[in-house]
Amino acid sequence: MTSVHDTVALLGRTPAALDALLRDLPEMWTAGNEGAGTWSAFDVVGHLIHGERTDWIPRARMILESGDSRPFESFDRSGHETEISGRSLHQLLDLFAAARSKSLEALRALNIQPADLERRGRHPALGAVTLSQLLATWAAHDLTHLHQISRVMAHQYRGAVGPWSAYLGVMHCSGHSEL
Amino acid sequence: MTSVHDTVALLGRTPAALDALLRDLPEMWTAGNEGAGTWSAFDVVGHLIHGERTDWIPRARMILESGDSRPFESFDRSGHETEISGRSLHQLLDLFAAARSKSLEALRALNIQPADLERRGRHPALGAVTLSQLLATWAAHDLTHLHQISRVMAHQYRGAVGPWSAYLGVMHCSGHSEL
Repeated sequence: MTSVHDTVALLGRTPAALDALLRDLPEMWTAGNEGAGTWSAFDVVGHLIHGERTDWIPRARMILESGDSRPFESFDRSGHETEISGRSLHQLLDLFAAARSKSLEALRALNIQPADLERRGRHPALGAVTLSQLLATWAAHDLTHLHQISRVMAHQYRGAVGPWSAYLGVMHCSGHSEL
Repeated sequence: MTSVHDTVALLGRTPAALDALLRDLPEMWTAGNEGAGTWSAFDVVGHLIHGERTDWIPRARMILESGDSRPFESFDRSGHETEISGRSLHQLLDLFAAARSKSLEALRALNIQPADLERRGRHPALGAVTLSQLLATWAAHDLTHLHQISRVMAHQYRGAVGPWSAYLGVMHCSGHSEL
């Protein structure tokens, strides 16, 4: 069992960490991806915004209100396309910070008690999940995308590092099917 | 060929990004590692400080002053042990920011010209390398350790996410032998 306090501590820091890393960084780093059909750091921030709007708090509410009587809405992995359309990275970073802040306020308002953490929901593909698992996944999802962003950015220097590539684990990471 | 401007832009942001992510985060996240003999986020910050002191700028100077006439000093992968001994994460984050700032000042003072980027040094294990490759590796090394930190932190929630683990690439990353 993880603590909601630990989860919230991480969730609250991710927007500032991404802001410090990405804002005003040359586009070579932020717009570069790993090839056709893959995401740039910019795309990932759009995906994180989309998750705030449609995934985490809506699913937590559903568990608390309806339990596992019906499955969650499927998460739309191309939902970020609407978020990023016509926007700059500055705007996305601001929107992510605002959306995350709003989500954490909503989480506080849910006033989750220890006994609630074992309440169950139903994931459309994974089946039975608990509120505790949902909240832990919210934090781990930030980390999987920080892991992805660091890999996608490193990819831009894959050739430039020459023989040092052998010592840089990130250059040998295939992404492990991040979904 | 990468641009020194792009490299410096990234190098200048890493301390603030790690600070925003890690400062005052519960120790569960920052002190947890992946098992015996592996590094926590705290250890990684110590390693980054050690690199600023002994690796990047000293090697760049050596290329400019001595070329490939003698190999670089080997980098001590346990050198972080001295850096972290008796220190708090707050102190390490401050030391990393100060050391990086000092390194970037030293880099500016080297006044590297485009033609210098192809100058060669000799790595004790990898053989011939260029100044351009060294500088690109400095930035990629930040990214490989950001990749590592996000993985090590996610490891702390490996069990907690339950079936969602299948969707979280970071949970399936073995580290690709980061050296």
